[in-house]
Amino acid sequence: MDASSAEKRGRVGQWPDGAAYVDGNYMPVGDARIPITDWGYRRSDVTYDVVGVWDGAFFRLDDHLARFRRSMTRLRMQPRESDADIRAMLHEIVRLSGLRRAYVAMDCMRARPPRGAPYNPVHARAYIVAFAVPWVWLFSEELQARGIHAMVANTPRIPPESVDPTVKNFHWGDLTRALFEAADAGADTALLLDADGFLTEGPGFNVFIVRDGAVISPDRGALEGITRKSVFDLCDEFGLRHEIRPVPLAELREADEILLATTAGGVMPVTRLDGRIFGNDRPGPVSARLRERFWARRAEGWHATPVDYT
Amino acid sequence: MDASSAEKRGRVGQWPDGAAYVDGNYMPVGDARIPITDWGYRRSDVTYDVVGVWDGAFFRLDDHLARFRRSMTRLRMQPRESDADIRAMLHEIVRLSGLRRAYVAMDCMRARPPRGAPYNPVHARAYIVAFAVPWVWLFSEELQARGIHAMVANTPRIPPESVDPTVKNFHWGDLTRALFEAADAGADTALLLDADGFLTEGPGFNVFIVRDGAVISPDRGALEGITRKSVFDLCDEFGLRHEIRPVPLAELREADEILLATTAGGVMPVTRLDGRIFGNDRPGPVSARLRERFWARRAEGWHATPVDYT
Repeated sequence: MDASSAEKRGRVGQWPDGAAYVDGNYMPVGDARIPITDWGYRRSDVTYDVVGVWDGAFFRLDDHLARFRRSMTRLRMQPRESDADIRAMLHEIVRLSGLRRAYVAMDCMRARPPRGAPYNPVHARAYIVAFAVPWVWLFSEELQARGIHAMVANTPRIPPESVDPTVKNFHWGDLTRALFEAADAGADTALLLDADGFLTEGPGFNVFIVRDGAVISPDRGALEGITRKSVFDLCDEFGLRHEIRPVPLAELREADEILLATTAGGVMPVTRLDGRIFGNDRPGPVSARLRERFWARRAEGWHATPVDYT
Repeated sequence: MDASSAEKRGRVGQWPDGAAYVDGNYMPVGDARIPITDWGYRRSDVTYDVVGVWDGAFFRLDDHLARFRRSMTRLRMQPRESDADIRAMLHEIVRLSGLRRAYVAMDCMRARPPRGAPYNPVHARAYIVAFAVPWVWLFSEELQARGIHAMVANTPRIPPESVDPTVKNFHWGDLTRALFEAADAGADTALLLDADGFLTEGPGFNVFIVRDGAVISPDRGALEGITRKSVFDLCDEFGLRHEIRPVPLAELREADEILLATTAGGVMPVTRLDGRIFGNDRPGPVSARLRERFWARRAEGWHATPVDYT
């Protein structure tokens, strides 16, 4: 790359609070805004993905890019960026932030039909925004070490028939209500059931139970999490059985251990559910091993794609 | 008001494409943007309302303001603006646009928890944005005169237990999917059922059936529409019976007439459902009378609050 285009690209680390990309343009994250009239906001007509950067490298970048494209296709969104464009753009926003540990989000949303066109999303173009900001923990490291205190929400998860949870989305009304329930109950977070009483997921994470040495995660109402996939990979390394199948509430309550997984937190043990204490109020042995191994493997460069900071 | 504050307020009609208010500041609607990191967008943690301005007057402004406040309270949002502030602000954006016929939207959304605070909406402040733009028809006047062609969507409405439809919200994933179904089927719009097969609402409107001279609208899964209320008021004027009760799909299909109601369209007759022709492909007599009377009453200043353009 010659000097002039390098200059056009902006300096490495020039926006340490975070860098963003909005429909073709780079800017500090504080300047990244969307029109209040666009349907991405006004109809939550948007899908997104989040990839982590840890010690200068993306984690499972290909998996996130593939899922993001799958989500866009399911919503019939065709932004102008190819997967290669998106990959280069993500490198660029992390480069512009200079961050070695970053939370990197990419959204694809519909704008709005042009004036005079029928009031149908078919007529609205889709565009991409993204940002890289300093790493965000869903739960602080202190909470993770202590163990998360969760509750079972009264609010049921939006059913997959209405909004597909495998297309990562911002339909968080149920999850937000559950977070208020948690705050009222003095819990750190909430786990949601579907209308039939089966475990689904929580606000921003997949849920697992450990039972008789097997690690089990729900087959319904949940995102196909990439950290969930990593947990199962680690189970394989440990020779632990893992399953994706229905988890009724009774089985959740009787589990040996409960753990959560998300990009913005890795593997997070739960030690209390509705005040019931698990494992003597300490992270259970399987959860603790998985968490420890997860970060050890990350430090080894597991599924890592070094960010191009040049 | 003295000259200097009048100047500070901006000129009448200075932004004819639309005027907006974002968290305390007035601007052209094209400049009205929200941070891509705010939860109003990122978690669809937002409620809204829409009031129409027709021939220089708001329609049922008090009803819209009361519903907006009720929605904010249910979501535990406490923006800094009082109802009097919101009322004055709405007058101001219409005044700045100079529009005599306008679509006026007001949103209240949560920002995001401050850095370091727990990841819970309890810790995020709420703020208000609003805009007034030239009047928008949900369906063109030509379509309304011809009659709307609707279909019954395969996608079920998000259940009230997960997201309360009486708190006007942007959880439109199901409605958006239904609009794609409609586009694929060559229909103008779609009507959604709940999981038990009862009629709820459509993308942006309440639905009614006419049966044996009574006007009936669903009791579940639907917004408590202010235009719906107006339709019932007109029924009273005509001496027509009206009911809010369950409407199973079979009854929808066998209805004498079907009509829709929304702020951005008033009363809109449906003439086809899934290709089945109603009323010889012309708006039915009750629908036509209601539509005609609705606009006649509007022209008389029914529930009108003149905009302060001074």
